[in-house]
Amino acid sequence: MEIKPIAWFRSPLSDKFGTPRQAGIVSGLKGWIEFCDGYETAMLDGLEGFDYLWIIWGFSLNRTDVASASKVRPPRLGGNERIGVYATRSPYRPNPLGLSSVRISSINASEGTIEVLGADLVDGTPIYDIKPYVEYCDAHTGIRSGFASCAPDSKLTVSIPDKLITQGFDSDEISILKEILSQDPRPAYHDDPQRVYGMAYKGKNVRFKVETDVLTVLSID
Amino acid sequence: MEIKPIAWFRSPLSDKFGTPRQAGIVSGLKGWIEFCDGYETAMLDGLEGFDYLWIIWGFSLNRTDVASASKVRPPRLGGNERIGVYATRSPYRPNPLGLSSVRISSINASEGTIEVLGADLVDGTPIYDIKPYVEYCDAHTGIRSGFASCAPDSKLTVSIPDKLITQGFDSDEISILKEILSQDPRPAYHDDPQRVYGMAYKGKNVRFKVETDVLTVLSID
Repeated sequence: MEIKPIAWFRSPLSDKFGTPRQAGIVSGLKGWIEFCDGYETAMLDGLEGFDYLWIIWGFSLNRTDVASASKVRPPRLGGNERIGVYATRSPYRPNPLGLSSVRISSINASEGTIEVLGADLVDGTPIYDIKPYVEYCDAHTGIRSGFASCAPDSKLTVSIPDKLITQGFDSDEISILKEILSQDPRPAYHDDPQRVYGMAYKGKNVRFKVETDVLTVLSID
Repeated sequence: MEIKPIAWFRSPLSDKFGTPRQAGIVSGLKGWIEFCDGYETAMLDGLEGFDYLWIIWGFSLNRTDVASASKVRPPRLGGNERIGVYATRSPYRPNPLGLSSVRISSINASEGTIEVLGADLVDGTPIYDIKPYVEYCDAHTGIRSGFASCAPDSKLTVSIPDKLITQGFDSDEISILKEILSQDPRPAYHDDPQRVYGMAYKGKNVRFKVETDVLTVLSID
């Protein structure tokens, strides 16, 4: 089946590195669904009665040298343990489709945009469908969720020197940046206190290093 | 993007007519995911730790004379009220993808089949992805779900004459059949007590009519 993007996602995060690994982990992170060709204002009539929606999207940034595999190494398991691809939400799956539930922040039907909170989509991600989240058939609680039985803890204390804070970000943006960094964007098997990492955020390069449980931002360029 | 079926769905229900309108409505209804080309046993390793999974599937039985529209008439609203397509789970959407969460009943990795409960997929439906249901990011409760704020009530009392009950169905199958019929498979705008409907169930034709709140099965052939 041939599917075509109905919309594109806009986010302050333009790389996989730093983008939350599941929806809802950085619950205040704003992003935007921007509809494209074929959109009509009437298509969103009635969506204002819903608090959440589903996004079915494409893993557009997959490395092309990594094929879909039978088993993958989820970051959640430390990056070393292998598990069946269908027991994970890994991008490297036979059809590279992603699935995320996000909170609806505001709807602008005439412009064809929806502001959402908590998405785990990178800027520029193609979106193939959105659907209203229907609690009675979509929400299951008190159930087993395998290796992902609870949300990941915020692992790191984030330190941003005061002189860097005023560089173009308001206090909400700094707060979200701290929440993203506290999740530890590093690959699961990295633990080198000397290594300097760079994360793209709102068009700037946020450079940092991590020593034991403290992440220190070095520069924002 | 081109996507290919990874599996096909098997169900006792071979027509849209009678198939539950959302997942979980007929919670005891058994169905089977049967993986196809490209499947490897290892792909399901670890799925046994999860109680639910997501199915992303194709609306393969859409009428070809009905195009995707900006607004649709959900059965839940009586079939007359029009609402934006993205505020519904209607099959007539730009990319005809369906999304359902189902309970895992049993996994047979060596044969490449998963028995699931509560699906709203018709027999023969192509499946493009399955993903584990992860409670911490997928379950949202106490939220607004628009026009579908609660599960539909079982509307009809179902009467199956004793002499029909022994015709090839065991008591579990009869119990599920009653649950399906109680949901009122008729199109929302139908109310003709003389009209005889036929529903395919386990390869048989179940004929019935409905008068006020009582559905009476006439024959099972």
